[in-house]
Amino acid sequence: MEKIRGEQSIAFEQPVYIRSWASMVGQKEGEGPLKDTFDQIVDDPFFGQDTWEESENEFQKETAQLAMKKANMSSQDMRYVFAGDLLPQLIGTSFGIKSLEIPWFGLYGACSTMGEALSLGAMAIDGGYAEHVLTVTSSHLGGTEKTFRYPLEYANQRPPASSWTVTGSGAAVLSRTEGEIKITGVTTGKLVDLGVTDTMNMGAAMAPAACATIYKNFRDFGIQPDHYDKIITGDLGKVGSEILLRLLKENHYDITGLHMDCGCEIYDADEQNTNAGGSGCGCCASVLCGMILNKIKNREWNRILFVPTGTLLNTISFNEGKAMPSIAHGVVIERV
Amino acid sequence: MEKIRGEQSIAFEQPVYIRSWASMVGQKEGEGPLKDTFDQIVDDPFFGQDTWEESENEFQKETAQLAMKKANMSSQDMRYVFAGDLLPQLIGTSFGIKSLEIPWFGLYGACSTMGEALSLGAMAIDGGYAEHVLTVTSSHLGGTEKTFRYPLEYANQRPPASSWTVTGSGAAVLSRTEGEIKITGVTTGKLVDLGVTDTMNMGAAMAPAACATIYKNFRDFGIQPDHYDKIITGDLGKVGSEILLRLLKENHYDITGLHMDCGCEIYDADEQNTNAGGSGCGCCASVLCGMILNKIKNREWNRILFVPTGTLLNTISFNEGKAMPSIAHGVVIERV
Repeated sequence: MEKIRGEQSIAFEQPVYIRSWASMVGQKEGEGPLKDTFDQIVDDPFFGQDTWEESENEFQKETAQLAMKKANMSSQDMRYVFAGDLLPQLIGTSFGIKSLEIPWFGLYGACSTMGEALSLGAMAIDGGYAEHVLTVTSSHLGGTEKTFRYPLEYANQRPPASSWTVTGSGAAVLSRTEGEIKITGVTTGKLVDLGVTDTMNMGAAMAPAACATIYKNFRDFGIQPDHYDKIITGDLGKVGSEILLRLLKENHYDITGLHMDCGCEIYDADEQNTNAGGSGCGCCASVLCGMILNKIKNREWNRILFVPTGTLLNTISFNEGKAMPSIAHGVVIERV
Repeated sequence: MEKIRGEQSIAFEQPVYIRSWASMVGQKEGEGPLKDTFDQIVDDPFFGQDTWEESENEFQKETAQLAMKKANMSSQDMRYVFAGDLLPQLIGTSFGIKSLEIPWFGLYGACSTMGEALSLGAMAIDGGYAEHVLTVTSSHLGGTEKTFRYPLEYANQRPPASSWTVTGSGAAVLSRTEGEIKITGVTTGKLVDLGVTDTMNMGAAMAPAACATIYKNFRDFGIQPDHYDKIITGDLGKVGSEILLRLLKENHYDITGLHMDCGCEIYDADEQNTNAGGSGCGCCASVLCGMILNKIKNREWNRILFVPTGTLLNTISFNEGKAMPSIAHGVVIERV
């Protein structure tokens, strides 16, 4: 059982390459600091469809197809698709990818789903169950706000700790045979619930989960933070990122100079009025499958820990007074 | 790549044992034909809690703990838990299992989720990522009807093709080292959408997905239906089961004498007024982790194909006029 590392981690024996990747985002993301890193910016929030949900379906399908096209492959080459989104019963995914006709494992880890998809996809490759698999997640401002908070038409007030759901999708093709980037390890998260109940401050709920997974990653692999060129969370935003750094310091790890949060990068919070930053399954996925993997390809970074977080709430649990159990999944990504 | 079989199947090289299992159901299920096969019948629909959702949390947690106890193990022995439920954002699971503190992969395949959990759990064992993993799913009549159709308090009319959501949970511990039953293969489903829009007839939407996965299982492994002692669907109910048999006959496979549906077995439909039969993640899970695995243990059946189905709808997709994309995941289970 040499693949097992410590309590929550595994190291892969076979190479698991990230062979190709693609990202597509909406207009607001396309006006932000990362605008040049996305493959496509879709100015129409409906993506030519009739509803927010159909728009998200288009984002997920088109991004998946673009990722496969970049690998000169089609859906027939994909043994599995590991995919999910934020909407109830995964309708952002099911209606999006059904026409691809790839055997599907439906995943839900809230905004951490891209980490879960990469983890299970890499396990499928390394385990010998697949030559190539597709991983994809998405989110959409309109559908997400309607599902979790208020319909956009209500124009509700947004407190400073709140985040802005990214409209977009990221997709990656994992492969056994060829690539310049590989996944070498995984640290799978546990649910962490410290009693945070403010759904307008998801960063505070998710930061302890990020801390727990990053801490375990260091301990399981017997490494120090500077093992990585960057430690990248998904959408903690400004508030959650500060809490994460403090919590890790209290546990004797300082990642201040190494940490980056996709939610803090994707918007200019002051200029674009996005408060704490971006969030949603599409946030870390579109930043990973754009800026991050491009920087690794170009050897600006040679080894990173990608650790997106999610909080497992919904309006029922919120209305029944529950807190927000959260989770973070860590994925070690390296230049070949 | 000898594990790969055909287009959608894999055969495991290492033994993946189902080491222990447990099932808990509500009062109505405890009055049905399978009453003697469940480990525990909970007459209080609230399970001592305040809400339907908290009740489902209790079902999932208690059933998981009972399954681990039967293996003389605790949650510290479980490397992963593969788990999900029907509620939006998996709150039946997240609030249920968080106290177990096991690294979690959140899954959503609607009523097929137990098949998805067994598939990925078996891949984790065979792939060398775990010694033991926990798999668990649940559903609850109150929470599910509120989520997908009408609150129970509305006492809406139920057409003959409608199903009755099972209140209950099933859990199984998969293990590399010891057991009398093993998982030897998996056939992973694709989304199938033939345009069925009647949410009061989910069997009709799911039958084509069951047919597709069963057909692929036969072809991928080069076998005939009588390779199995039973071919067991999850909750097609009476209407869906008839459609499945007819569709397979049209594809030159007759499984009439071999087929069983958990939704048809769990209630006496005429006596208990459950129309087409039982449904929900807890239906096939509680029947698997009671009657089915007990029969295999006792060698009444030596090899079965367990193929639960799910339909990936929600009220948004329904209200927007969409059909019900469905999926079925096949798991080959054998007596050692």
